[in-house]
Formats: sequence, C-alpha cells, structure tokens
Amino acid sequence: MGASGTGSSGDGTVGGLGEFGLIDAVVSRFPVTPDVLLGPGDDAAVVAAPDSRVVASTDLLVEGRHFRRDWSSAHEIGRKAAAQNLADIVAMGARPTALLVGLGAPPDLPSDWALGLADGLAEECGQVGATVVGGDVVRSDDVVLAVTALGDLEGRDPVRRSGAQPGDVVAVAGRLGWSAAGLAVLGRGFRSPRVLVDAHRVPAPPYAAGRAAALAGATSMIDVSDGLLQDAGHIATASDAVLAIESSAVEVADPVRDAAAAFNADPLEWVLRGGEDHALLATFPPGADIPDGFVVIGEVTEGDAGVLLDGRPVTGKAGHDHFA
Amino acid sequence: MGASGTGSSGDGTVGGLGEFGLIDAVVSRFPVTPDVLLGPGDDAAVVAAPDSRVVASTDLLVEGRHFRRDWSSAHEIGRKAAAQNLADIVAMGARPTALLVGLGAPPDLPSDWALGLADGLAEECGQVGATVVGGDVVRSDDVVLAVTALGDLEGRDPVRRSGAQPGDVVAVAGRLGWSAAGLAVLGRGFRSPRVLVDAHRVPAPPYAAGRAAALAGATSMIDVSDGLLQDAGHIATASDAVLAIESSAVEVADPVRDAAAAFNADPLEWVLRGGEDHALLATFPPGADIPDGFVVIGEVTEGDAGVLLDGRPVTGKAGHDHFA
Repeated sequence: MGASGTGSSGDGTVGGLGEFGLIDAVVSRFPVTPDVLLGPGDDAAVVAAPDSRVVASTDLLVEGRHFRRDWSSAHEIGRKAAAQNLADIVAMGARPTALLVGLGAPPDLPSDWALGLADGLAEECGQVGATVVGGDVVRSDDVVLAVTALGDLEGRDPVRRSGAQPGDVVAVAGRLGWSAAGLAVLGRGFRSPRVLVDAHRVPAPPYAAGRAAALAGATSMIDVSDGLLQDAGHIATASDAVLAIESSAVEVADPVRDAAAAFNADPLEWVLRGGEDHALLATFPPGADIPDGFVVIGEVTEGDAGVLLDGRPVTGKAGHDHFA
Repeated sequence: MGASGTGSSGDGTVGGLGEFGLIDAVVSRFPVTPDVLLGPGDDAAVVAAPDSRVVASTDLLVEGRHFRRDWSSAHEIGRKAAAQNLADIVAMGARPTALLVGLGAPPDLPSDWALGLADGLAEECGQVGATVVGGDVVRSDDVVLAVTALGDLEGRDPVRRSGAQPGDVVAVAGRLGWSAAGLAVLGRGFRSPRVLVDAHRVPAPPYAAGRAAALAGATSMIDVSDGLLQDAGHIATASDAVLAIESSAVEVADPVRDAAAAFNADPLEWVLRGGEDHALLATFPPGADIPDGFVVIGEVTEGDAGVLLDGRPVTGKAGHDHFA
C-alpha cells in the first residue's frame, strides 16, 4: 500500500528498503515449524501450546551495552539474542517453540545487517526446533532488540527457582567463564584466542540439559546469565535455603585458565562471577540420577538463605546489576 | 544477593533502586489472574492457553518517536503501550491474557516514573482481564519499551487479514482521527481540547468489539494502528480483494471536526490517514448481523487488490512507514 522509505529501495539501507520491505525480506528467513499455526504477517501469530500452557520470557538488548556491532557480526548478535531467550525457556524444563522479535534500527542501518541478524536468529532457533513467528520494526537511534521466547512444558511441571531442599545436590551444565574471558580478550583489543572470543559472541547453552534435568526430577533450575554465584543466590532466596558450592568442584576450562594466566587474572573470578554463558544451574534430590552434562558442585543445606563458597558466605556484588 | 545500584536506594532513581529493587517494586503492581499459572520472578512465566493455542504479538516503543515524556505521564505511556498490544490480540478475535514488558531506562530515570508506567500497564490490562506476567529491565540512554501480548482464541479460528471476500461488508469500530487531532493540538503547543489530547495520550480500543466481530463471523479484521486507508490496504493485499470505502460513511466526530476547523486542517485526513487510535476494521459476510459498535463504511469488491475511496484508487503514502 505505497509505504515508502527515506531513500530509494536500492540504497542498501533498511530505510531504503522501508518497514514493509524489510519485514518481507526478513520473514522469508524463518522456517515454518509444526508449532506455527499462523506465522508472521497478521496482527498476531498463533503458536501451538499442546498442554494448554505456554512458557514465556522476554529480554531487551541495547547496542553498546549488550552487544557491539564492531565486535560481533549481525549473525552472531542474532544467535546470542535468540540463545539467551531460549535458555530461559529451557531453564524451566520446557521445549522452546517460538520467538517474537522487535528490532529498533536507525534508517541508515545496512539491510544486510538486518538480514544477517534474521539469519542468526533463525540458526539459533533451529538448534532447538523453534522459529520466529512475529515481530516489530521501528526506527531508533541505537540498535535495540526485544526478544520474547515461548515454550511448551510437554505436560511436566515447570522447574522453578524455589524448589531446592536441604540435602539436594547442586549441579551445573554448560560453560562457565568463557564469555567473561572472551570479553576480557576483546576489551584488551585482541581477537584471539578465537574460541573465547567466539564464546563471548555466541553462547552455547546446554539446551538438551534442561529437559533432561526436568525428567531427572530437578527441584530447581536457573539459566546462569548473571554469574554462577549471583544466580545461585536467586535459587537460594527463592527456595529459602543455602547453596553450598565448592570452588574446587567447578571446572575451569583450559582456554579460560590460559587466558587468565596471560592476563594475570583470576580464572575463578570469571567462572564464578562472569555472566552470559547461559549454563544451567540445578538442584536434584539426594540419590537422583544426575543427567549427562551436569557436574556436581555442591549441596543444599539449611540456614539463612544465601550462598556459601567453600564454607564462607558470599557477600557484596556477586554478579551483574543492569543499572550498575 | 547483594546487587547494588549506582546510587543510594533513597535517591529516587531507578539506578538507586537497582535492577532487582525496581523489579520487586514493579511486580507488586500486577494482579494475579486465573490465567497466570506462574507469574514474575522465575526465568519465565507460565500462562494458561486453554484451547492449546496461544496468540502472540510484540511491539517496540522508543522515546521521542512513539512517546514523549514531556507530553504524556508515565501512567499514560503505560496505558498506551498496553493498549496497542492488547488491540493486536483483540483484532485476531482473541481474549488477551498476559503481557511481558521489557523496559530500557537511564539510571537517572525517577523511580516514580517506572512505577507510574507499571500502574498504567496494569490499569489498561485490567480493562480486558489481562495482567503483566514477566519482563526485563536494562539500562539504555533513551527509554525503550518492548511489550509482548498473549491471548486465548477460546476455541475459535483466528480472524485473519486474508479472509475478505467480494460481497462482504466493510465496517469499523472505535475512534478514528482522534489521536491525529490530539497530536496536532500538542504539536502546536496547546494542551486542549483535553478530550483530543487525552485520546492521543491514551487510545481507547473497542476491546469488546473484537470478540463480537469474531462471533458474528467476521471474515477479516485488523487493528487500525497505521491509518484507516493503509490498514484497509493490508486487508486488501492479504485477501487479494478491493476494499471500497465511502468517505461519507466514515464518522467524523465533533471534537475532531472542531479542531480541524480551528487549525484550518482537513478532518478527513486525520480520520482516514491518522494512526494510533486502534479502531478495529473488519469485513463481514453479506447478511451478517453487524455487531454493536461497528459502522458500515463500504464493501469488498473484485479487482486488483487495493483500496478505493469514493470509487477512486488510493495511491501514494496512505499511512505510516516507521522508517520514514
């Protein structure tokens, strides 16, 4: 209907392509899965919710704070934005089904950047069988991404933060400290070790571990987005229990250890307090069969809600406050 | 867990309150409805989806483009942000159940502003029995709002944009031109007529009309967010049909007519091309019992997909391109 952009459609920018041209170009990137009952192009999408419940989580990502266009490609930013939301769904023990994505962009943003972002979103979603079903595109000064993820509990109870019980085992699946190490590398102007830089650009949440934990009877679970100790604190507070973690049980991966040595940094700081790796922290009843991929790092005990690290209370800033 | 902000918690800003303090303060604003199976405070919320499907839509609102803090109160901005998303759900013929809200804010944003926003979101949701079930708070330079709405089809088929058939009646429910008139008033530095300024600040979508249209057998429906003619064009394109609208049948409300006269403007321009009133435009089969609140403004005819106004094709910019 005659919507026109600020430039010619051939100038290679999203402004030139126009709102509706951009939406048309992006939508073709997203496969239609069996969960998509009505995809993009109407006032709202319709997504399957097989067990009559839907799990939903939303994240807002702002350029310069959550990503940098000079540090990450559009494809990487798309993957990361999807990953951090999919991880929230998985941390409930649910199966991710769909994403809705709002993009705020300046008119001079290259169209290829927006399409690369869409490809990254689609690729990451594809890892769990999800897809993008809807969105919004608006003009803004900085690039802003709003991602909402939906999921299906497959008939199970959600695994909440509040179910940890004294006597439970504390276990973690996935990487810790990799993203923080990669950020330290980038912050010092380096581009290698590549494996750490890549880990910062695109996290690798242990998607399959969430469902496995739920099936194994996990009593609580959380996506480790803000740092292991801070997110352990969220479980402790919600469960009114103590999470006693042994630092010696927490794996420090070789690349993280090597980078810390090179920078004269403490690798445990990255592992215990670094965010954005999107590991899964869970508690299991005593005697539970801990699923593959989980490493036991402590136990739940009685006492004033909080986290003990090697027997000492964790105090002060244990992780990330988004206003700090 | 020791999260701390940039200032003391008593300095009256969201930075002083801190991310978690702000979330705690905001969450208490949102009632728990029967659709909320698990509310805010975990990695994700769980919302009822009684007929095993969920309707979902998302919008991104950026300060200075979608709202101005000097023109609207936080409460009004919250109501408007909720309203435009609830209208998308209603336009599918669905019942809104829940909102997820991402807030990007500078640390010096007054806490009272954030709480007023939450109250506005809650109040508008309350009009349809919905509530806020989750969200995210991050730091950003400008205030950014990302709103996702979920809804329940109550066993009905979604009313899409694509079902209009030649012979159908075209009808509209709700206000048209009020928001554009209010914007013109504000843009000229005035604060009255109050009824128009209020209409720009807080739209009044005809929420009940969406379900009524679905029950009456509406063949297509759209939330009029970009302007009547442009959104009619979306139905025309999706349905591959012609929407023939008679301007004489489109109501021009007295306050809109009076303001246009005072500003020497054409009130029909506001009514036909103004956005943000969130009226509902729908088509009904011939002989259908048109629900209360809908006014017949034309008919669907055969031909190349498009909109006719008084028999003449609508060309050029018929409404809003968010990059223009």
